[in-house]
Amino acid sequence: MSRQPVLGLTMGDPSGIGPEICLRALCEPAVLKRCVPVLFGDASVFRQVIAAGNATWKKSSKAPLRRAAELPIVPVAHWGKNGAAPVPTIVDCKAIGASEVRPGRVSAACGRAGYGYIERAIRAAMRGTIDGVVTAPIHKEALQKSGVRHAGHTEIFAALTRARRSCMMLRSDALTVSMVTTHVGYAEVPQKLSVQRVLDVIELTADAIRSMVGRAARLGICGLNPHAGEHGLFGKREEERYVEPAVLRARKRGIDISGPLPPDAAFTTGQRKRFDAIVTLYHDQGHIPFKMLAFDTGVNVTLGLPIIRTSVDHGTAFDIAWKGIADPRSLYAAIEVAVELANGKRGVGRR
Amino acid sequence: MSRQPVLGLTMGDPSGIGPEICLRALCEPAVLKRCVPVLFGDASVFRQVIAAGNATWKKSSKAPLRRAAELPIVPVAHWGKNGAAPVPTIVDCKAIGASEVRPGRVSAACGRAGYGYIERAIRAAMRGTIDGVVTAPIHKEALQKSGVRHAGHTEIFAALTRARRSCMMLRSDALTVSMVTTHVGYAEVPQKLSVQRVLDVIELTADAIRSMVGRAARLGICGLNPHAGEHGLFGKREEERYVEPAVLRARKRGIDISGPLPPDAAFTTGQRKRFDAIVTLYHDQGHIPFKMLAFDTGVNVTLGLPIIRTSVDHGTAFDIAWKGIADPRSLYAAIEVAVELANGKRGVGRR
Repeated sequence: MSRQPVLGLTMGDPSGIGPEICLRALCEPAVLKRCVPVLFGDASVFRQVIAAGNATWKKSSKAPLRRAAELPIVPVAHWGKNGAAPVPTIVDCKAIGASEVRPGRVSAACGRAGYGYIERAIRAAMRGTIDGVVTAPIHKEALQKSGVRHAGHTEIFAALTRARRSCMMLRSDALTVSMVTTHVGYAEVPQKLSVQRVLDVIELTADAIRSMVGRAARLGICGLNPHAGEHGLFGKREEERYVEPAVLRARKRGIDISGPLPPDAAFTTGQRKRFDAIVTLYHDQGHIPFKMLAFDTGVNVTLGLPIIRTSVDHGTAFDIAWKGIADPRSLYAAIEVAVELANGKRGVGRR
Repeated sequence: MSRQPVLGLTMGDPSGIGPEICLRALCEPAVLKRCVPVLFGDASVFRQVIAAGNATWKKSSKAPLRRAAELPIVPVAHWGKNGAAPVPTIVDCKAIGASEVRPGRVSAACGRAGYGYIERAIRAAMRGTIDGVVTAPIHKEALQKSGVRHAGHTEIFAALTRARRSCMMLRSDALTVSMVTTHVGYAEVPQKLSVQRVLDVIELTADAIRSMVGRAARLGICGLNPHAGEHGLFGKREEERYVEPAVLRARKRGIDISGPLPPDAAFTTGQRKRFDAIVTLYHDQGHIPFKMLAFDTGVNVTLGLPIIRTSVDHGTAFDIAWKGIADPRSLYAAIEVAVELANGKRGVGRR
């Protein structure tokens, strides 16, 4: 069997930059050296995107995009059925017709199509036909308009894989953060905290880091309040109620973790170098520092799933969609993290 | 009259690094070129601090610290009473005896003394004897132990100057942020928001920037929820209820302001360069990015007071107190911002 993991790429919202960055990945020699990419999307949309971006691509891209037009297209119902070794392929989900897609526009049809690709890719990963899923961006409003009740990718993957516990992690060379809560309103965060949830995220983070770097993780965790509450001076002792007991339990299980740290001190250059990852309690506590340090190259990883899942760390960028100018580096980074995780799981590579 | 503003420096918690960084400032030629520093503290503590740090200081400091021992010492009751032009002076408040101070220890007596220096300096500034106050760090727990009910400097200044509205601003070359709420627990933030409060902070920020840079400010303001709520998808529409109406009213008053911005996008390199200052809604939304960019050189400014007040942006650093090794750069930066504000107010300098 090939030592290259087979990765399912999902096209994302058809009217965003997902289709074009996925096409670039399928034609990028550095990507093809590390994995076999299989694209869950719509062939008619891809053809249209190639045509739309053709002029730009001819100038900017070293990898001739013409290759994309020559990729095998396989209807989703047939793909993965014969025993042959997988090759880079477009799996045609027929979730939407190209004529229905207006680049840069929020639509229920595109939201539904984006969800369809994810559903198909998850099914393939659960069956073991692919080694992991790498997702291009969907649009949260389009998703909501389409009637899907999940807030985003992380929630879709947790539900469809029936994960008992999961969390979001953002990974880059400069900083790695994981999150106890993610896509909930500011005011709802405190009621979502519990010792068990904090402990779950600590454990998931420790496991993921160990799998990626091949040794025990050094973790930090933030408090919730200014100055981590300063011994009850600010807040409702959320640090003492939820974070400290989880840290003590994690340490008993052999995890090296410091905290609760004052949130504004945790991400300074001196502090963040002490840790492989920092556990944060809410979306912006982790996302603000992460995006400052890794705007173009961040990778979003869902931890705790029975399958591997990574994603770009940017949105659909409707303002530049279908122009052939979108930067594919975050997708390449997401593919690389998925390769690392897949190799770690299979005992291949660095370990 | 001298064109140099007279600035009152407060010594901070006697058991922290406040005394030694203030002494350095009093002997630093670059500081003395820009202002006349007048130190509100205790002469006996200063003598002890000089003795304790003497060995280190001889090696590290270019400005001979011996000068500090030769500074005029004036009892607080007498200072500012005769008509002579002010000179660098130690104003002896006799708030604590040197023998009562144990470096690096939280104590009610030190908390009370630190508060006393601030009270004296505010009184002098309100009388017009000094042009502004620059504060060294106090310790919030010591302050609380001493029975003072204010959470920190910002709150003390607001109360003692009877400011109708005020807010905290953090200023550095890389980033300037102001804050709608500061030292309150995470969960209390939403109930502290109102259109009027958000508008007040926008206006205070616009005024301060104009005074410092000599032209109209370009401002941004963050939302509260992940992705600034994404049109009601997350949160309780705090953006629509509090931020947007305040932004519209500010624009009507001629203020150039963008937002509500998604908090995690507002501080990336590309975004933050668009603004002279970014208004944030809670402590860590502003402090996390600020401390990442300006750990050693940040200045804390209280806006909206009838007097000028700036401060170092670090704590008492009890672990290195009285060793003569504390870095005075944040204090020098705070003095420089106070000089800019004082000159702006008096129509001196850049305008």
